[in-house]
Amino acid sequence: MKALQELVVLDLTRVLAGPYASMMLADFGANVIKIETPDGGDDSRAFGPFAGTESVYFMSLNRNKRSMTLNLKTAEGKQIFIDMVKKADVVLENYRPGTMEKLGLGYDTLKEINPSIIYAACSGFGHTGPYSKKPAYDVIVQGMGGVMSITGQENGEPTRVGASIGDITAGLFAVIGLLTALHHRNQTGEGQKVDVAMLDCQVAILENAIARYLASGKVPTPLGNRHPSITPFEPFKAKDGYVIIAVGNDKLWEKFCNLIGRQELINDERFATNPARTENQRQLKAILDDVFPDKTVDEWLAALDGQGIPSGPLNTVDRVINDPQIKARDMIVETVHSVAGPVKMAGIPIKMSATPGAVENAAPLLGEHTEEILKEMLGLTSEQVAELRGKKAL
Amino acid sequence: MKALQELVVLDLTRVLAGPYASMMLADFGANVIKIETPDGGDDSRAFGPFAGTESVYFMSLNRNKRSMTLNLKTAEGKQIFIDMVKKADVVLENYRPGTMEKLGLGYDTLKEINPSIIYAACSGFGHTGPYSKKPAYDVIVQGMGGVMSITGQENGEPTRVGASIGDITAGLFAVIGLLTALHHRNQTGEGQKVDVAMLDCQVAILENAIARYLASGKVPTPLGNRHPSITPFEPFKAKDGYVIIAVGNDKLWEKFCNLIGRQELINDERFATNPARTENQRQLKAILDDVFPDKTVDEWLAALDGQGIPSGPLNTVDRVINDPQIKARDMIVETVHSVAGPVKMAGIPIKMSATPGAVENAAPLLGEHTEEILKEMLGLTSEQVAELRGKKAL
Repeated sequence: MKALQELVVLDLTRVLAGPYASMMLADFGANVIKIETPDGGDDSRAFGPFAGTESVYFMSLNRNKRSMTLNLKTAEGKQIFIDMVKKADVVLENYRPGTMEKLGLGYDTLKEINPSIIYAACSGFGHTGPYSKKPAYDVIVQGMGGVMSITGQENGEPTRVGASIGDITAGLFAVIGLLTALHHRNQTGEGQKVDVAMLDCQVAILENAIARYLASGKVPTPLGNRHPSITPFEPFKAKDGYVIIAVGNDKLWEKFCNLIGRQELINDERFATNPARTENQRQLKAILDDVFPDKTVDEWLAALDGQGIPSGPLNTVDRVINDPQIKARDMIVETVHSVAGPVKMAGIPIKMSATPGAVENAAPLLGEHTEEILKEMLGLTSEQVAELRGKKAL
Repeated sequence: MKALQELVVLDLTRVLAGPYASMMLADFGANVIKIETPDGGDDSRAFGPFAGTESVYFMSLNRNKRSMTLNLKTAEGKQIFIDMVKKADVVLENYRPGTMEKLGLGYDTLKEINPSIIYAACSGFGHTGPYSKKPAYDVIVQGMGGVMSITGQENGEPTRVGASIGDITAGLFAVIGLLTALHHRNQTGEGQKVDVAMLDCQVAILENAIARYLASGKVPTPLGNRHPSITPFEPFKAKDGYVIIAVGNDKLWEKFCNLIGRQELINDERFATNPARTENQRQLKAILDDVFPDKTVDEWLAALDGQGIPSGPLNTVDRVINDPQIKARDMIVETVHSVAGPVKMAGIPIKMSATPGAVENAAPLLGEHTEEILKEMLGLTSEQVAELRGKKAL
């Protein structure tokens, strides 16, 4: 049994934030029906890299979903969608605000059709406010939301986070909103609209940077890789890669100095206490930058671990995939795609004891399940489906 | 009415990942009871910056919660906790795996007491696997999970994301797991354990970096701020800050060249098409680096906006707080703390139409609600509470 197995989700989303959200629902068993335009479908089907003809980008975001095509600009397509809304629990979309209204399918219309529908919308700037209708991309909201201004080497340039956290965090908050609305509906029968803006989510993950600025009046700048108040607590370059150490207190400092054979540093007044080490971080870093290249990452980790000093490798993606903990947690999974064959991707980071999620199906081909879904959900016949195809509604 | 208002959450979490998760529940009306050790409570009460005697760091993560003290190492404290579990819906903790078992309060024990309890645990490496018992910090999981290896300037050093996304994404996934479990319980009455590891969450947000590596065999490196396949799509330095532009197609390119008065670039064979611009990105950047310093950020944004060219400022935190869209979306809110007075922090990024969240109460003082909660939940008298205090159980 899966936690969300009875949940019918009409998924109009494309590219990243929305598909990431519906993927989480699908991983826990929701019946996610990906509704795509007949002319190419989700834009990200055309994004590289490819495995043969199939986009690996698309595949890693659309597993466990079924795909049907539907042309919402035709009268017939619109009617099919409305008939599906009557039987659905959730509508999820990440169009620019106003698009669904232009199609005649805005929340105000859909709630008349099904008052218990949960309508979740993910957009760049949200459905209210002066920038609402403006286009947004991950790099724009990472920039506007402040995270780029605090990411980067010390005194260096503001830096984009290498993963698309502008999109992904919006997808996560959208799922939280949608599940919160689902709980309310389970209690009361009432549906509602959930409006999540990528920009808002960037502000929400800034956490203490806002507090730090308001308390100090100092505008936060890129922090580099070190901890602002604990030292040493950062990556160092070993022979074949970086090792991160987190020497959180003076006892660990003593163990660390013994480990590197530099006992004279333990009581060196520049480094004897954590505040002193933080004050003299540059001098300490210069010393340690000379120490770490002596050994490989694996040698360092074994030695640090033996002393109970918190540490870890700075893994490149090839090492992430082969990390024993990540493997043990099933965080790299494989699907077998009907055209592309076996494709690996990230697994499910939520481990549930009674109703575990599962990656059971590879991403669908465009419209692979159109007929199946229309028969199952609306009781259409093959002839009716063929007729709709003739009218370019599918 | 709030979506989660009947939900009783026993919140044993400290510092960041767990408190971030329980804050989201509290924002939507859950009855979050923050259970803290009597000797100082949540470690982050001692983290700067401070407003007077009170930690602003703590305040920005613990609004809308009540605090009670409880010493789980005393027999009386343990019994109180067990009695509370009988009446609770959720237990949330972010101890190192094994800690709750050592206290005699592991999930296997608690589910005997209340089979419908949802037990959500957030830890560095999760409750299974070879690293399970190891300590983790944000910088360690950012390093091990791969995001640092793809963040940074091109050919530059791997870079920590300036916000604590190691903790925060784990908090987000924990809420998703917990609400998914809640839906299952609403259907069946069955509770369960939800186990979320910070490291797993880092893998889950890598998205297409895994696919890119496996499809190409090339280990992803820091990407800098530009888009790998669209150009120009990055920040440029204006007179008083950075402006981000996202020139997504050739029509926008033509508009952009007209706007900057450089019509000769439109059909320059190095830049006429997006693939050509991407191929010759460095030459193009050198040209645009000379163009942008002519105007201020606000002048550029007005001009770009006038031409419909997607763009935005690279806001520092002071500008984030005053951004018109962020203000219009209530993404900066103020609480009035009983000791520290007014404190601003990030608002709620999920806008719900029927059951909106609200930031109604400032963070609690340590143990501020101990007596109130014990009376309300367990029907204790003032005398019994005093007696428990005498036994150091509170």
